[in-house]
Amino acid sequence: MKKYAYGVDLGGTTVKIGLFETSGNLVKSWEIPTRKDNGGELIIGDIADSLGQGLGDEKISMEEVEGIGIGVPGPVLDESVVNKCANLGWGVVDVAKEMAELTGMENIKVGNDANVAALGEMWQGGGKGHKNVVMVTLGTGVGGGIIVGGKIVPGAFGAGGEIGHMQVNKAETMTCGCGKKGHLEQYASASGIVRRAQELLNESDRPSMLRDAQYISAKEVFDCAKKGDDMSLEIVEFVGEKLGTALALISCVVDPEVFVIGGGVSKAGQMLIDVIQKNFAKTAFHASAGAAFELAKLGNDAGMYGAVKMVL
Amino acid sequence: MKKYAYGVDLGGTTVKIGLFETSGNLVKSWEIPTRKDNGGELIIGDIADSLGQGLGDEKISMEEVEGIGIGVPGPVLDESVVNKCANLGWGVVDVAKEMAELTGMENIKVGNDANVAALGEMWQGGGKGHKNVVMVTLGTGVGGGIIVGGKIVPGAFGAGGEIGHMQVNKAETMTCGCGKKGHLEQYASASGIVRRAQELLNESDRPSMLRDAQYISAKEVFDCAKKGDDMSLEIVEFVGEKLGTALALISCVVDPEVFVIGGGVSKAGQMLIDVIQKNFAKTAFHASAGAAFELAKLGNDAGMYGAVKMVL
Repeated sequence: MKKYAYGVDLGGTTVKIGLFETSGNLVKSWEIPTRKDNGGELIIGDIADSLGQGLGDEKISMEEVEGIGIGVPGPVLDESVVNKCANLGWGVVDVAKEMAELTGMENIKVGNDANVAALGEMWQGGGKGHKNVVMVTLGTGVGGGIIVGGKIVPGAFGAGGEIGHMQVNKAETMTCGCGKKGHLEQYASASGIVRRAQELLNESDRPSMLRDAQYISAKEVFDCAKKGDDMSLEIVEFVGEKLGTALALISCVVDPEVFVIGGGVSKAGQMLIDVIQKNFAKTAFHASAGAAFELAKLGNDAGMYGAVKMVL
Repeated sequence: MKKYAYGVDLGGTTVKIGLFETSGNLVKSWEIPTRKDNGGELIIGDIADSLGQGLGDEKISMEEVEGIGIGVPGPVLDESVVNKCANLGWGVVDVAKEMAELTGMENIKVGNDANVAALGEMWQGGGKGHKNVVMVTLGTGVGGGIIVGGKIVPGAFGAGGEIGHMQVNKAETMTCGCGKKGHLEQYASASGIVRRAQELLNESDRPSMLRDAQYISAKEVFDCAKKGDDMSLEIVEFVGEKLGTALALISCVVDPEVFVIGGGVSKAGQMLIDVIQKNFAKTAFHASAGAAFELAKLGNDAGMYGAVKMVL
């Protein structure tokens, strides 16, 4: 194995680039803007230029680089081809091939950003020491990544780990962003938590600290719950019940050693872990009930770490 | 690769042994009884003896054998150790190690029988040509096996593919064999289908061909449904709804190319496939909605085929 490798986390606004030692040590990281002009045709060239510049600054030659891993916000086939990525303006783009042509590097692997972040957390984050990990990302939406035997499960149609779209409530009348109803994302995302709070606030005059909040956010709900606010505690329980139920279903499929909980909502910390784990234990199949629950540790760097891990 | 390999399907009553060419061709197969005396201590020796005899009969030497794969009816760790197998009387048994000592063979792999059958169906059965397969076995219970990238997903606690214990009905009051409630197995197994029929027959005087049946079985329900019996059609729809919903949930986790439906209930054929697929399409995430549905093709031989595939 050569001494260095690159991990690239390509997002809709910025590209995070990490130069790593192949031992896992992050040498340095930086960001460049994601230029989406003309259907995103500049993006891969911009990244290739920045990778070359990064090596130049450190007086490292491309011959010392083991490979380049890239996480992208869309479905990926064969660790190479991105199939429609609205956030970047892309249609079908063979990212690995284009990057190989620009850099002369052969070992290039591309993965979906949520899956790649899961791999990063397995390697150096909340799932460290494990090979069978399910990552749950609770942000604006709910994403996920499934790692089995140390490898990403991308899925046959690029939908591996799309756990936000598991139906957890058949009776739901509101529609998920994907067009169907009753999906986990509608309850356990930051916006789902806010929606639940607004429903409870509107349906009665029941007192709650949330009524004094300037702005209802998922963070506000957890903060008020920690202060003992009854309505906020009810919302936290509701979110935990939906998540615990969904994760128990996942255990019947891939039976992970550990669930790693990340994303903005996970800043609620141990209270969130506890309520998920309690509800998981209620419905999990007995053999899987011993799965561990950990908070994600790498934050926004998980994508860079997972990206580089793909090529090591 | 050597010319031959063994696939062994160790069941609670009989052991099925297949001598294969490593190309996939079954040379011959036979059965021996599973002797469960004294905590099943004779089983591995019996199999080793029979494997040796099978080679002798064909004038093949052990040096020409690539390996021995073994499917067992219990949870398996590290492709080697069975952890409690009530059907055989076993506690913790290192099957691969014991078999290696008795046969002098190094390449020995052990897998859970449902997972191994899934691998067999992927290799030579309903999932042939695919690497990402979910097998659903509808028998007395509901079992499953998850194949990702051509390999079994055993799970960290040996519960990979335990899809019969996915909770699909929170409101259920009856208890599943595992002690929890509302699991897929309670509705989609042969016994679950019979239970549903009995509930409908008892709750009113509604006419049905099922009232003329000497004995209500899952087969009887599908047979009457095919003749247009309204109540039987309702039961088939009920089963399809529960299965379709569960398989859509599975797609959000591992996103397979194909679901292979096997076990005794699958003898109902295309009617079963159609009702599962229709209900799957209703709730599946759009990216995964194109998954194929196939009937299992290897019947009781799937275990032998999958077992040998593990060592190839």
